[in-house]
Amino acid sequence: MAQVISERRDVEFVLHEQFEVGNLSKNDRFAEFNKKTVDMIVNEARNLAVKELLPINKEGDEQGCTFEAGKVIVPDSFKRVYDLFNEGEWLAMTEDPEWGGQGMPHVVGQAAAEYFNGANYPFMMYGNLTHGAGKLVESFGTDEQKATYLKKLYTGEWGGTMLLTEPCAGSDVGALETVATKNADGTYAISGSKIFISGGEHEMVDNIIHPVLARIEGAPAGTRGISLFLVPKYLVNDDGSLGAFNDVVCTGIEHKMGIHGNCTCSLTLGGKGQCVGTLIGEENKGMAHMFLMMNEARLHVGMQGFACATAAYMYALDYAKQRVQGANLTKPKDGGVPIIQHPDVRRQLLTMKAYVEAMRSTIYYMGLLRDYTHVTEDAEDKARYEGLIEILTPVAKGYVTDRAFEMCSHAVQVYGGYGFIEEYPVAQLLRDCRITMIYEGTNGIQAMDLMGRKLGMKKGKVFMDLMAEISKTVAEAKEFPALAPFAAKVEGSLMKLGELAMHMGKTAMSEKVLSAFAYAHPFLEVTGDVVMAWMLLWRGTAAAKGLEKAKKKDIPFYEGQIKSLDFFTGCVLPVTEGKMEMIKATNSAIVDIAEESFIC
Amino acid sequence: MAQVISERRDVEFVLHEQFEVGNLSKNDRFAEFNKKTVDMIVNEARNLAVKELLPINKEGDEQGCTFEAGKVIVPDSFKRVYDLFNEGEWLAMTEDPEWGGQGMPHVVGQAAAEYFNGANYPFMMYGNLTHGAGKLVESFGTDEQKATYLKKLYTGEWGGTMLLTEPCAGSDVGALETVATKNADGTYAISGSKIFISGGEHEMVDNIIHPVLARIEGAPAGTRGISLFLVPKYLVNDDGSLGAFNDVVCTGIEHKMGIHGNCTCSLTLGGKGQCVGTLIGEENKGMAHMFLMMNEARLHVGMQGFACATAAYMYALDYAKQRVQGANLTKPKDGGVPIIQHPDVRRQLLTMKAYVEAMRSTIYYMGLLRDYTHVTEDAEDKARYEGLIEILTPVAKGYVTDRAFEMCSHAVQVYGGYGFIEEYPVAQLLRDCRITMIYEGTNGIQAMDLMGRKLGMKKGKVFMDLMAEISKTVAEAKEFPALAPFAAKVEGSLMKLGELAMHMGKTAMSEKVLSAFAYAHPFLEVTGDVVMAWMLLWRGTAAAKGLEKAKKKDIPFYEGQIKSLDFFTGCVLPVTEGKMEMIKATNSAIVDIAEESFIC
Repeated sequence: MAQVISERRDVEFVLHEQFEVGNLSKNDRFAEFNKKTVDMIVNEARNLAVKELLPINKEGDEQGCTFEAGKVIVPDSFKRVYDLFNEGEWLAMTEDPEWGGQGMPHVVGQAAAEYFNGANYPFMMYGNLTHGAGKLVESFGTDEQKATYLKKLYTGEWGGTMLLTEPCAGSDVGALETVATKNADGTYAISGSKIFISGGEHEMVDNIIHPVLARIEGAPAGTRGISLFLVPKYLVNDDGSLGAFNDVVCTGIEHKMGIHGNCTCSLTLGGKGQCVGTLIGEENKGMAHMFLMMNEARLHVGMQGFACATAAYMYALDYAKQRVQGANLTKPKDGGVPIIQHPDVRRQLLTMKAYVEAMRSTIYYMGLLRDYTHVTEDAEDKARYEGLIEILTPVAKGYVTDRAFEMCSHAVQVYGGYGFIEEYPVAQLLRDCRITMIYEGTNGIQAMDLMGRKLGMKKGKVFMDLMAEISKTVAEAKEFPALAPFAAKVEGSLMKLGELAMHMGKTAMSEKVLSAFAYAHPFLEVTGDVVMAWMLLWRGTAAAKGLEKAKKKDIPFYEGQIKSLDFFTGCVLPVTEGKMEMIKATNSAIVDIAEESFIC
Repeated sequence: MAQVISERRDVEFVLHEQFEVGNLSKNDRFAEFNKKTVDMIVNEARNLAVKELLPINKEGDEQGCTFEAGKVIVPDSFKRVYDLFNEGEWLAMTEDPEWGGQGMPHVVGQAAAEYFNGANYPFMMYGNLTHGAGKLVESFGTDEQKATYLKKLYTGEWGGTMLLTEPCAGSDVGALETVATKNADGTYAISGSKIFISGGEHEMVDNIIHPVLARIEGAPAGTRGISLFLVPKYLVNDDGSLGAFNDVVCTGIEHKMGIHGNCTCSLTLGGKGQCVGTLIGEENKGMAHMFLMMNEARLHVGMQGFACATAAYMYALDYAKQRVQGANLTKPKDGGVPIIQHPDVRRQLLTMKAYVEAMRSTIYYMGLLRDYTHVTEDAEDKARYEGLIEILTPVAKGYVTDRAFEMCSHAVQVYGGYGFIEEYPVAQLLRDCRITMIYEGTNGIQAMDLMGRKLGMKKGKVFMDLMAEISKTVAEAKEFPALAPFAAKVEGSLMKLGELAMHMGKTAMSEKVLSAFAYAHPFLEVTGDVVMAWMLLWRGTAAAKGLEKAKKKDIPFYEGQIKSLDFFTGCVLPVTEGKMEMIKATNSAIVDIAEESFIC
């Protein structure tokens, strides 16, 4: 039977054969998460995703959210499933059980999240943001703030958001104008307007807790004067019961290209009455605090984009096997065949397969690295893992969502005319996926982050650590004769990337800084390509091992892994190397062209 | 003031400086179309587009079409503007005045069409299809059919469509099941169901004429047994008045990702009563006849995609000049600047500018070639022009729409979060544009057409003719010292393309046919890249000439042309050459992978 959302065999392959996540259970923290438990968790997540989240995805898209008389109405079917989801304790599955989490490894959480987001990503946004708000409270909140809010957030009883953007402060958060004025009791009166607030107002939960970036009166301009506040929709009494409305007023919702099931709200704080917030973390350190959440959020966004791509691939593959149209080129007289036999369709399917697999490994690896930081006792190792997370974040967000959108577009193409019809599922995936390239820092900003911050971290040591990890996989793969040619290709691209990184790092520090940054995005692309190749090579090694003891029925799967590697090293890396040459030449037209020359 | 839809200066540049279309007026056929007249026509088209078509584009998208009680209701505002459009005699502007056309050169018609389609492409589809149906009648109709239908179609009094697709016959038209049974009076009773019929039913016009592909009872299977019929919605009496309803019943319309303003209908013919059609052209030659229309339609589709891209670029450029966000990297303390100053935004804008310019030239050139076929008296020249049209059609449809979609996506990215909001114009352009990659033959089919049919036409002579045209431009550009380095790069890529074409042609004729076709789409991409580079080099030459006598105010425009060329040869061609290497290596994974290996 056709698989939906994600390829189950591949999910298991990544968890157990590529990353051997069972090993995590050797550590006290994850002792209960042996292979059996991990499989059970993923299975349960899959069941919930397939049986509950997926069936309401289309309804969410079609019905969307509405704004009536100041109220935001989410799709009818969401409330029941949201309660189910929270009863299953999935919202904060990787968090401390003390606060309502399940304490599971992040890498396992990624597998569950893939099914959830692939089934219904607009729905999942409510929980994701709530989790992020909780994380902020856990990381920077006072004991009182934790006692008041944390469990309510992690269990999904209340909602959480993230109030950064204002009409004139998008990518440039430092330009924000929301003001916080200290009250006599130590709280703050908050006043301002925020836009693009996902899940900013709805009635699925009794209260919504808004982390808000604002400037305390008299604080410096720009990002250095921004503080973070917790602003509940309803004030909370000392006994935990809900008090007065806190004047967080929704003034409208956006009509968007996709993610219709999630409401994108404009909120006015303290516009009519009193809006009270409490400082969270230190004064004027709001940006730094929020960045913690932003980094997690960026990884979530990578997951969202990837989940659209994997679901799109599953649909396209199934369609290509079913849809009979046109004869096989080598047997023109035999009549119609399933379109998976046509070379151009196979090209698109194998492109999707290779990228989806490589992205899956990358996304799960981000979780694994996080788990490693938790279980290692070696400070140097811990710092190395954290560095790898830092440098791979722009890839896992920026590169992955760029490619994910392309993969969704391939799926539409495989469907042909039906791909453009909303009755079929891939059109929505394409529309939903498009925002992942924009929010939580546009992919242009991810690229600047890689070139401007991450590349030079610790004088380049972090990037060298990444190179070293890839080299390890190359060395291991070379042990397998069947993989050696592919390993050599990955190694070749890796060496060129290393040289290019040195070159671009220097250029970015020189007077040619603008030229360097003009190629930040292409540089992210080639970095991402090499990371994908690395992951496919790593998978190839795991597949080669698997083949040594495979039962007959498992052989096609393992062989498929080698084919993805063959395809990627043969059809993508040569183009990547062409891009590297191009970047290295650093043509100056982008910087030099006069503004008036863009148009007469 | 900001330009909308298209860059006026650039349109004039292509018409007069690159292609010198005024020269066409030296021929009798186009005697009245001197420069002044051409400019007047384009100006009028622009006015109508900006003042009438553009303002109803959003309404068309939001209101869309509805299907109620068997009737299709198009957006409210369309009827008035459709009548205006037809009063202006724009529907068949390049056709013979005898039949209601204006007889203008195709290249001039392209400029007008760019404005119309850029302003409101879903609206334009009604007229485009009507024109195509008229072209069929003109080309293959009997005198009686012409007298009955042609003027009504070319003047837009009646509508026209194109009934090919059936649920099991999409790309494989030969699989269709609609049947035609000969009546005693020589007409045919038509019976079958068609889907995806643009403008298949609506009430903006009194009658709709459907060219229908069907199989005469007893005719061979596949494409060799298909005939073409004219089936009016209402039968036409001898005096031209409308007679009985002809049982063409709309059974529903599609809910699509884009082009909401155009109704996509399912039609049942002869389901309840009698549906009568008349044969047009020869029995069993329906596919060949329809192909004439298909080729024109493919060029229209290229225009549609391109028009989305050029409008998207205009919006993005305007937005990037207005939107203040973040500091200039070289002046971090100066505060916010328009985002056009940020290198990554400039990269995207220059990418869009270069492609839009190159696509504009390509699309207009297709019109110019058509005009040349009409004015040349040399049979060999005529054949050469026709060959160039043939070989460039997959580029003008397939390559152009692929890139156009990417350009629309860049525009969304430049808008940031606002790009995803339907209140702003670029989201719709992205959604509308997506279908252009699919209909009138998916871009995969365009790629197969290039590699499988066009490359080998006349034993490769047609492809050689294209190479020769490009070489001419290279030679001319080399005369300008400032252009010589760019010319050398274009020449280098052209030589490599020539070698690759030889190689792929041979591979396609060998037992490795599937491998060759697995790279048909990448081959279309590199061919398209070289064609774009050619057009930009040609423009560069025209700009270099322009600079020699330019007034100060014109200099930035001309310099911008050289910058596009600099960018494309420096930032795109190196990647193109990487792709060529990749294609040449013809990795076999795409063909070799077992179907079961796509999934466990």
